[in-house]
Amino acid sequence: MKKPDWVIDKERAKRAAAAETVWLFGLHAVRDALMNPARIRLRLVVTRNAADKLAEAIAASGMQPEISDPRKFAAPLDDGSVHQGAALEVKPLDWGKIETLCEPGLGAPRVVLLDRVTDPHNVGAILRSAEVFGARAVIAPHRHSAPETGALAKTASGALERQPYCRVPNLADAMLTLRKMGYVLLGLDGEADVTLDEALNPVRHLPVALVLGAEGPGLRERTRETCDQLVRIPFAGAFGSLNVSNAAAVSLYASRET
Amino acid sequence: MKKPDWVIDKERAKRAAAAETVWLFGLHAVRDALMNPARIRLRLVVTRNAADKLAEAIAASGMQPEISDPRKFAAPLDDGSVHQGAALEVKPLDWGKIETLCEPGLGAPRVVLLDRVTDPHNVGAILRSAEVFGARAVIAPHRHSAPETGALAKTASGALERQPYCRVPNLADAMLTLRKMGYVLLGLDGEADVTLDEALNPVRHLPVALVLGAEGPGLRERTRETCDQLVRIPFAGAFGSLNVSNAAAVSLYASRET
Repeated sequence: MKKPDWVIDKERAKRAAAAETVWLFGLHAVRDALMNPARIRLRLVVTRNAADKLAEAIAASGMQPEISDPRKFAAPLDDGSVHQGAALEVKPLDWGKIETLCEPGLGAPRVVLLDRVTDPHNVGAILRSAEVFGARAVIAPHRHSAPETGALAKTASGALERQPYCRVPNLADAMLTLRKMGYVLLGLDGEADVTLDEALNPVRHLPVALVLGAEGPGLRERTRETCDQLVRIPFAGAFGSLNVSNAAAVSLYASRET
Repeated sequence: MKKPDWVIDKERAKRAAAAETVWLFGLHAVRDALMNPARIRLRLVVTRNAADKLAEAIAASGMQPEISDPRKFAAPLDDGSVHQGAALEVKPLDWGKIETLCEPGLGAPRVVLLDRVTDPHNVGAILRSAEVFGARAVIAPHRHSAPETGALAKTASGALERQPYCRVPNLADAMLTLRKMGYVLLGLDGEADVTLDEALNPVRHLPVALVLGAEGPGLRERTRETCDQLVRIPFAGAFGSLNVSNAAAVSLYASRET
């Protein structure tokens, strides 16, 4: 009997995920990945110059670097990747289940959920802000969101190694899981009646999940319906809108326990 | 007698500035520039398809578009510029003097100063946040900061047309001018003892200028010395740092009159 298409798709995705590797590049991203004991590392390609700069991290990692000519850099990177003579092939990090990662315990943790934010520069900047403001995790759906790539790692400036970035099959399901764990789900929406602070003040001592959509389309319908409340960042101007990473930073800052 | 080098440099810069034009690209940036009555526009290159999408803005501008083949787009853009079939050659906007733009009047205006922030994507995102939070102007030195380019306009997503972005010969001199006008000058510095809110609370009703440096080097010495106070964004995490546009968004949000 022929397997149904969805089974074939699922198996294919599984095989792809197992085989999936990522080329990180740039001194900062490569150094942080070399120093991260949780990283599965496959190949390290560096120029002589970069090898000197990374000497300590390379020694710590125990890897044998492949020295490459800077004019004919041996790693398969996209044109225009500012690699600074360093590239490292790795497996994506496995951060485990959100039930464990986001377990509130006795604290009032924060979590960021991204609904189809595809730009790696935005997601990289959001990982940095999430790390800085101590968010437990950044959660995004498998499909239609920025994968863990070299460009994302570079913008994340090290945060990719330390800040959990979890891809889930379905964002609304992840939201329901978080709600069961005690999280209040606040969805950012420029048209909402309630401001971020009005919504946060009564729940600041609780676990809070901040849900942000892509610029333009915003939150999808099911995401929106799954939120406990829609909130807006209060704007002074009549025009304009925040870049999504800036909206995430402001929301994380606003939601801190004061 | 031979002119001294600095005179020659100055004259050259003046001639260059007078001749300077910028190619804006992308539907959003081109539309907003076509609709901006303050824009001096020189050439409009569009595909048939983009001309349809921009029909209203083109009519409003009174310009005669040059229709171009999408496969051989006639505007001189950098490779990889996502122009969406639309490019517009313009003169940089002249926002006039900061004494006029930042005149406090009876309000408590906000101003953002950028000390050598060169990445156009960061400056574009900062212009958006400045517009959203109603800042009077974003001020940066002529040298070592992101010029008004197509890439900046695209990231600014329309804000470049509406949010004053002023380039000044000397940033510290601009800070002194603002102080004379009644502004409190707060410099962002991750190592500062005082938090943003602690510094803001007593001066929230006054004009406030937020001064941000480039990632890595931070504020230059003279910039730092010219600030009234150095302040930090309170961080939960031990590692990491905010992207400069995210730091600007958080500072603007935190400094709003509550």
